[in-house]
Amino acid sequence: MQVDAGRFLADLHKLREFGAAGVGRGVVRPAYSEADMAARDWLAQRMREAGLRVEVDPMGNLFGLADAPSLLMGSHSDSQPEGGWLDGALGVIAALEVARASREAGGPAISVVSFQDEEGRFGVTTGSAVWGGHLAQDVADLLCDHNGVTLGEARSVVPATGDVDPVQFTGFIEMHIEQGPVMDSTGEQIGVVSDIVGIRDMKITFEGQQNHAGTTPMALRQDAFQAVSTFNQALAERFANVVTPATVWTIGHVSLHPNASSIVPGKAVFSMQWRDGDADRLGRMEQIIRDLAQEVADARGMRVSFGKMLGLEPVAMDMRLRKALETSAKTVAPNKWRVMPSGALHDATNVSRLMPVAMLFVPSINGISHAFEEDTDEADLVAGLKVLAGAVAAL
Amino acid sequence: MQVDAGRFLADLHKLREFGAAGVGRGVVRPAYSEADMAARDWLAQRMREAGLRVEVDPMGNLFGLADAPSLLMGSHSDSQPEGGWLDGALGVIAALEVARASREAGGPAISVVSFQDEEGRFGVTTGSAVWGGHLAQDVADLLCDHNGVTLGEARSVVPATGDVDPVQFTGFIEMHIEQGPVMDSTGEQIGVVSDIVGIRDMKITFEGQQNHAGTTPMALRQDAFQAVSTFNQALAERFANVVTPATVWTIGHVSLHPNASSIVPGKAVFSMQWRDGDADRLGRMEQIIRDLAQEVADARGMRVSFGKMLGLEPVAMDMRLRKALETSAKTVAPNKWRVMPSGALHDATNVSRLMPVAMLFVPSINGISHAFEEDTDEADLVAGLKVLAGAVAAL
Repeated sequence: MQVDAGRFLADLHKLREFGAAGVGRGVVRPAYSEADMAARDWLAQRMREAGLRVEVDPMGNLFGLADAPSLLMGSHSDSQPEGGWLDGALGVIAALEVARASREAGGPAISVVSFQDEEGRFGVTTGSAVWGGHLAQDVADLLCDHNGVTLGEARSVVPATGDVDPVQFTGFIEMHIEQGPVMDSTGEQIGVVSDIVGIRDMKITFEGQQNHAGTTPMALRQDAFQAVSTFNQALAERFANVVTPATVWTIGHVSLHPNASSIVPGKAVFSMQWRDGDADRLGRMEQIIRDLAQEVADARGMRVSFGKMLGLEPVAMDMRLRKALETSAKTVAPNKWRVMPSGALHDATNVSRLMPVAMLFVPSINGISHAFEEDTDEADLVAGLKVLAGAVAAL
Repeated sequence: MQVDAGRFLADLHKLREFGAAGVGRGVVRPAYSEADMAARDWLAQRMREAGLRVEVDPMGNLFGLADAPSLLMGSHSDSQPEGGWLDGALGVIAALEVARASREAGGPAISVVSFQDEEGRFGVTTGSAVWGGHLAQDVADLLCDHNGVTLGEARSVVPATGDVDPVQFTGFIEMHIEQGPVMDSTGEQIGVVSDIVGIRDMKITFEGQQNHAGTTPMALRQDAFQAVSTFNQALAERFANVVTPATVWTIGHVSLHPNASSIVPGKAVFSMQWRDGDADRLGRMEQIIRDLAQEVADARGMRVSFGKMLGLEPVAMDMRLRKALETSAKTVAPNKWRVMPSGALHDATNVSRLMPVAMLFVPSINGISHAFEEDTDEADLVAGLKVLAGAVAAL
């Protein structure tokens, strides 16, 4: 199978023209926007030219179907409110090129998909979630964007042709930019994904005693910010024997009450989020977090409470598909590839409940994504395309 | 000199009736409100009954004047938007009772004052600031409250009689509730103030790199919240050899950007406030804060910047007046008194530029003030009154 790098890059640049904006190679192409729908029209035409049968499901997920059974490849072509030209688009155009090359080579049969609303104008990966059966269409239709538009209203512009039965697909492979700094910092070209990490996220509240910042001696304070800070510092020590270099945890939101410079904070609400590919490890981390927060509160005579925990389970990639990508990476980019987890969610998470899935990463320059500045060296894009093609040919 | 505890407590309860609100002994009597002006009318009448000549200056500061030269005593009778019955009121009524008792005893000459807007509807201790000459009346008149009313408009209700020359006063003694938990926790009755602490207050900003909380490994993060937390923990260690048990420091305000649970915070702005009675120590603490913040930023490849610093200098109490209070405290409350700094600002700070000043504290139950729940055991109120009278008689 012979992919055409020039044709692939030309299509990628052409897709960027729909919603081109901002600096560099920026794109504004949110789900169901005029630019998004025009891009999907163009994509449908390119699918037809590649000999694929176009179907658009009621959510607006766009499929270019080969004869069943086929391997499904793709990603999404909607963008963040301010996004780059590669997030999602790369996986769709790479799939299109592999489908074309495969058809020219006489097989195997490759179908292509661009999922709708991966970037979550209405939720989180809503297009693949509805298609995958994890989110009912009537429930999804009630979701609102920031302007109060419902998904049900927004998808009235979809030229739906019918449902697409997942049974016809033997597996799903999604190529994507890394959206992180790992490969950019090591100079590698290819990341074969081991698993999409699971997420735990909850709010924690420390309650102490609001007091005058001048008249309350340090020893008599129950300062909620001090509790958060002490908890945060001790957490890194407690985690040391549990985490791996791929584990991440974040306090991204902090809200003090009353949040005034002359008042000892009586209350602090903060977000605690942690991600890892191993569900057991996520559980051990949760126990450490709960125990430590309680210890910190008890030591200060304060109260701690835990909000509802968001839990998304890790998804391991299918070993047969993953090994095919690894073997191909060894050939295309010797010593310049690695196995790595995906720290971000992708459509592959939803699709994994229907069929075997695998993912392939190429680097993000400076680790930047969800911004106009998002970019990847074109040599790395082509390397990724070749790894995909080599893997598909070997399956 | 024989003070009348019953008359003193009766007047204190009577004053609470003006603006009585909320639970317990709560009061709503903000500066220039109907309740405040009615209370001042009643106070003026009580001053006249005590043989004092009433003057109201253009700001609305109410004086009950004895023949010059006299010792000035008092505090303020305006309250916080939600305040207690003692904050300010105690010092005014105690001064009135000492003036009465002193007059009945044939001397010494005691004048009484209730300053206006100590609680800062329009600023910080604005009544005594204008009288003390630290704030020009025409500048003060432009200050606005939270509803956009100017001080100039608000003070149109003042029945001004004329200016009051500070030269006639030999000194100023202010009795006040502690507004902190120190004496309540030790069971002491009397605090003789050594100094009103100085304050330093500034905003500090750490800037790192905003990043995806899933795809950015811990080792490659420049997390602004982590910088604040590390700074905060190290600060306590660096301060250990510099501070005293009376020194306080507070991070009361924290603002993360973008403050979202799935994003590594790229920026953190926080308030750093510290208070101490020793100007040199305040300076040494400032150097530690600046050096440490820079070290924390440098170690992480981040940037730190410092906002404008608010500086209020410490005010030492006059040693002669203070010693008179200490001697009297030894008699009235043996082994149940202490020398302590005032961690809060008071009218005495402004008056200290005009004449010798001293302050006396009684305990606050549970350290509570600026709240309806504010209270003090009546035995402690009377003990404070007796210490005042004893000191005045001995001067």
